[in-house]
Amino acid sequence: MTADRTKRNCLAVILAAGESTRMKSAQSKVLHPVAGRPMIAHVVDALAKAGIADIALVLGRDAEKVEIAARNEAVSSSVHIQTERLGTAHAVLAAREAIARGYDDVLVVFGDTPLITEAPLVAARDGLANGADVVVIGFETADPTGYGRLIVENGELLAIREHKDASEAERAITYCNGGLMAIDGRKALDLIGRIGNSNAKGEYYLTDIVEVVRAAGGRAIAVEAPEEELTGCNTRAELAVIERLWQQRRRHEMMLDGVSMIAPETVFLAYDTKIGRDVTIEPNVVFGPGVSIESGALIHSFSHIEGAHVSAGAEVGPYARLRPGANLGEGSKVGNFCEVKKAEIGAGAKVNHLTYIGDAFIGGRTNIGAGTITCNYDGINKHVTRIGTDAFIGSNSALVAPISIGNGAYVASGSVVTADVPDDAVAFGRARQENKEGRAVLIRERNKALKDAKKKAAT
Amino acid sequence: MTADRTKRNCLAVILAAGESTRMKSAQSKVLHPVAGRPMIAHVVDALAKAGIADIALVLGRDAEKVEIAARNEAVSSSVHIQTERLGTAHAVLAAREAIARGYDDVLVVFGDTPLITEAPLVAARDGLANGADVVVIGFETADPTGYGRLIVENGELLAIREHKDASEAERAITYCNGGLMAIDGRKALDLIGRIGNSNAKGEYYLTDIVEVVRAAGGRAIAVEAPEEELTGCNTRAELAVIERLWQQRRRHEMMLDGVSMIAPETVFLAYDTKIGRDVTIEPNVVFGPGVSIESGALIHSFSHIEGAHVSAGAEVGPYARLRPGANLGEGSKVGNFCEVKKAEIGAGAKVNHLTYIGDAFIGGRTNIGAGTITCNYDGINKHVTRIGTDAFIGSNSALVAPISIGNGAYVASGSVVTADVPDDAVAFGRARQENKEGRAVLIRERNKALKDAKKKAAT
Amino acid sequence: MTADRTKRNCLAVILAAGESTRMKSAQSKVLHPVAGRPMIAHVVDALAKAGIADIALVLGRDAEKVEIAARNEAVSSSVHIQTERLGTAHAVLAAREAIARGYDDVLVVFGDTPLITEAPLVAARDGLANGADVVVIGFETADPTGYGRLIVENGELLAIREHKDASEAERAITYCNGGLMAIDGRKALDLIGRIGNSNAKGEYYLTDIVEVVRAAGGRAIAVEAPEEELTGCNTRAELAVIERLWQQRRRHEMMLDGVSMIAPETVFLAYDTKIGRDVTIEPNVVFGPGVSIESGALIHSFSHIEGAHVSAGAEVGPYARLRPGANLGEGSKVGNFCEVKKAEIGAGAKVNHLTYIGDAFIGGRTNIGAGTITCNYDGINKHVTRIGTDAFIGSNSALVAPISIGNGAYVASGSVVTADVPDDAVAFGRARQENKEGRAVLIRERNKALKDAKKKAAT
Repeated sequence: MTADRTKRNCLAVILAAGESTRMKSAQSKVLHPVAGRPMIAHVVDALAKAGIADIALVLGRDAEKVEIAARNEAVSSSVHIQTERLGTAHAVLAAREAIARGYDDVLVVFGDTPLITEAPLVAARDGLANGADVVVIGFETADPTGYGRLIVENGELLAIREHKDASEAERAITYCNGGLMAIDGRKALDLIGRIGNSNAKGEYYLTDIVEVVRAAGGRAIAVEAPEEELTGCNTRAELAVIERLWQQRRRHEMMLDGVSMIAPETVFLAYDTKIGRDVTIEPNVVFGPGVSIESGALIHSFSHIEGAHVSAGAEVGPYARLRPGANLGEGSKVGNFCEVKKAEIGAGAKVNHLTYIGDAFIGGRTNIGAGTITCNYDGINKHVTRIGTDAFIGSNSALVAPISIGNGAYVASGSVVTADVPDDAVAFGRARQENKEGRAVLIRERNKALKDAKKKAAT
Repeated sequence: MTADRTKRNCLAVILAAGESTRMKSAQSKVLHPVAGRPMIAHVVDALAKAGIADIALVLGRDAEKVEIAARNEAVSSSVHIQTERLGTAHAVLAAREAIARGYDDVLVVFGDTPLITEAPLVAARDGLANGADVVVIGFETADPTGYGRLIVENGELLAIREHKDASEAERAITYCNGGLMAIDGRKALDLIGRIGNSNAKGEYYLTDIVEVVRAAGGRAIAVEAPEEELTGCNTRAELAVIERLWQQRRRHEMMLDGVSMIAPETVFLAYDTKIGRDVTIEPNVVFGPGVSIESGALIHSFSHIEGAHVSAGAEVGPYARLRPGANLGEGSKVGNFCEVKKAEIGAGAKVNHLTYIGDAFIGGRTNIGAGTITCNYDGINKHVTRIGTDAFIGSNSALVAPISIGNGAYVASGSVVTADVPDDAVAFGRARQENKEGRAVLIRERNKALKDAKKKAAT
Repeated sequence: MTADRTKRNCLAVILAAGESTRMKSAQSKVLHPVAGRPMIAHVVDALAKAGIADIALVLGRDAEKVEIAARNEAVSSSVHIQTERLGTAHAVLAAREAIARGYDDVLVVFGDTPLITEAPLVAARDGLANGADVVVIGFETADPTGYGRLIVENGELLAIREHKDASEAERAITYCNGGLMAIDGRKALDLIGRIGNSNAKGEYYLTDIVEVVRAAGGRAIAVEAPEEELTGCNTRAELAVIERLWQQRRRHEMMLDGVSMIAPETVFLAYDTKIGRDVTIEPNVVFGPGVSIESGALIHSFSHIEGAHVSAGAEVGPYARLRPGANLGEGSKVGNFCEVKKAEIGAGAKVNHLTYIGDAFIGGRTNIGAGTITCNYDGINKHVTRIGTDAFIGSNSALVAPISIGNGAYVASGSVVTADVPDDAVAFGRARQENKEGRAVLIRERNKALKDAKKKAAT
């Protein structure tokens, strides 16, 4: 069946010129993110996976930003601005120039259906390869009310019947028009050009192509996609539904691949999150883009991880924030209320509590005490902290970068370290303690007197 | 239809005298919060929105607390203690004195249905204005088992048939009694007074008023409310269901108004949360009462915000806690593991990591380093910290209030600042560092010896 | 009915020898945790609650670990290694030696159905006590496709009909085989021994025992369990479903017992979590094993609690982490970004912000300032901090253990405390502040010059 398809070239026309009015947003809806990247990038990714290398973007609002968001190494794209809104067929013709370059297949898709996968796109192209002139992507649904019904007989798609025009019998049909379609690329401009606008709104509807192609003696068929993949986005509530469906799909795949999620509905993945086998993700973990977690790592609750790499057997959280450039070595640990940014944490090193590590290199097996801060910023520049292996940084220390602390060095608790510490040296940077006997009584009396004075002043 | 209603005055009788036994609680169920305020306050709010200015509270347990919880600037209320429990009709008559003051409309509602909105209340009052004597609020439901069915013919409510008394045909009816009703205020005491108690429990049921009013030649009708709005609360499990429904409703409204929520089911709003357009709320954010977020702000995951104002373009979290009195200027940033209480954060100022800011004023563009603590409490009094614009507070500093730090001032990392710092001055408040070469080896030996000694002692 | 059962002894055979291939895991699936303990421990717990004292574990992979995970004080167990996989009947016979010891009842259960409760197990044993030879545990389901149907007539179980062998009429049956069964202990070996393997796979199916026992003139019946209790686990996605069902069940019980959960779906309990009446749990709270919370405590959002005890009226969080050995006194408070490990927090004491308390005793009413760190670790040993009652630890202090701070003592903010502080004394351990007028201007100029130099070097 599919032998032929791979020899055919294909142009995908992405319709993404909508005003997005119901999103009530300062930007086009196709720029809104799903799983951490713009909706339209998901569509382009599915096209690329379906082997499509050329894309025509039909854009309106925010065209420049959308074009950037749609970039993908695997495809080359052209931009076509739609200035009037006269229906979907008219919108496709905004890309007339691209279609006219000559393609075997023309695929029409929408910028706001980010759940589409390559499977139905491939099936539609296979339909063309097997001789159909038009292939409509449909879906089965429990409640078809409002959708155009696909009237199929003996494998031929006879018509797309709008709900309002459908007979009682036709309304019982649960196979509906998903809007996406593939068209024979050599006939596309001709067929679309024949679509008329004699309807209530005076618009040119792409769905009329079924009628047109059959009137011209051509052949239309339908292929099925899961309903979920065709979910469109008109409001932020629908955007949230799409995000939820995306997350469910991806979490399920990961679990089947050997990732444990105690409460998958509380784990939020990015489009490119990579998680190895026998990793456990506890409830309430958020992944931003650019994360890879290796086999057997343990991610505790309330962790927030972005642009970071976690090696095998490492332990993260609870309440750990790994920011871009965090690179955790094997068996290392980053614990509660710790932030790590652009830093190597050596194998077996421990950063367990209330710590900020930024722009740093920490050697293997080194222990960073609670409340340690790498002072990496002078208000203008960022500076680097280097700590060797097997070092011990006492709690509540401030390490003022640029600074180097040697292997096996020891920083006394509560120190401010401003000069390099040699290997195996101890650094003290704290004042000597002095006790004033009985003085607390005086302080309490003074504080109480102050409170009383304030009260008096208030009355 | 509604021209008349607004000229009619109305008394709402709220029945809230239940023992709340199944709540297994030390307080009356109507005091339990939904979206951060007591259940009964939601009911009063809906009444106020329906233009009702007078309320009679029929109370039992915790009457004093309930009266306080029910206070609302738009209504005046009287308290009526129900001492016996002889049915809903009897309960309404506890407010006889209030009803006897003379009202056009008397509306009977429950203190434990906090999802009720003004719409069905208004519809019920419109019914009276248009000539009905009794208007019952009903709901359509998929599974009516157990509910009283509304027997309606030609727009007249003929009867409320209890499930156990219903015929097979009547049991097929899915329009059910919601319990709330409006009664002609001039006839209310007479009608309710005629309700008898010849039933198994010997109680006076308000639903019998339909029979009573029709027997007296009057007219009863029903108006419909969404089933959800009539959800009552008898257990904490039901309380959790009500909270969920409330949250879903409000999140949906906000999303349609232009707020992005990546995972709306993980965002918890308070009754008065205000969020502007094009604000993004990441997963796992909790709002307490008194929060307003302006357009374009970004609220990262794991933030907890209460009594705070966030200006346009500001960024909060992840893991930021804003407490009452936090006021974030435009484009400012409060980051991970930071707590801000009763403090102004100037425009463009940054409080990025592991910081406590309390009772403070921070100028525009000032940078607060990681681990900074405003020491605002002396054990008895709170003191104020003032920091100017364009200042730089080095990491891990302790600012001992009351204290002022000038514009453009610079506090060295790890300092304890106890005296004011002039504009453009640098404050040092830390000990000089000293390195002891090779000493770490000795410390490790000593610590190991201690460990060995402990082990020996343990055996 | 049940008078007899308690006089009968019972052996439970737990089948847990599966390869767990679809779990894609380095360990047997029955070791995977549900609510914080291995799946199989839940099964053993249900057996123990059903009064069963003897267990035969039929194991394969990870037998040693599984045997440990299955340990339970109330039961004694023997291990039987299954080397071949020839069907469930064959698997049971791996425990032949145990069965041959002679029991009134033999109960066959699975290691991967951790939601089973004692009720259906007791019902099955009651069936034997009342004269049945075989009692199959079944369940009613909305969609029986794929399950074996229970063919019951006049209270007799005539057959278990596999889906593929079922007639149209039989397929309409919604009462299905749950796999678990009770067998007359004196006849078990004989009956199971008669099961043949003349089927497509050539395996010995335990379900054939119904046929066998009836052919021998014996009697089989079925008892019903809720479908949920029979949920098995083959993939991590199913493991997540089981966890969700477990959590829902337990949360619901707790709410009915008087615990308030604002968003129960975000509260994660462990198998042994104990929570008193009128405790409120805010959204997003995670409990590890070993937690007890007393009446009236308030657990704020984003708290993570494990191995800890929280006394009446105490307040925890938001963002509080209580680790094993944390013991919070009445009315005490542990607030945001605080970690408490192996420490007593006295009644009314406050640990409100950004603090690490480990290996410590804190007296009643003592206030621990923001950013305080108990420096309990020297890299090798842990040391203890003792703080008296009514003490005040100034913010950002480091308390270097071992150390004692007396009653009513006062530690100045930003101090490093290395020596004991007597009662009512004030300890200072910080450097004197020095201001350098105008110096910030120079620092900024130097920092800018550095930035410019870096830029130049980069080009």
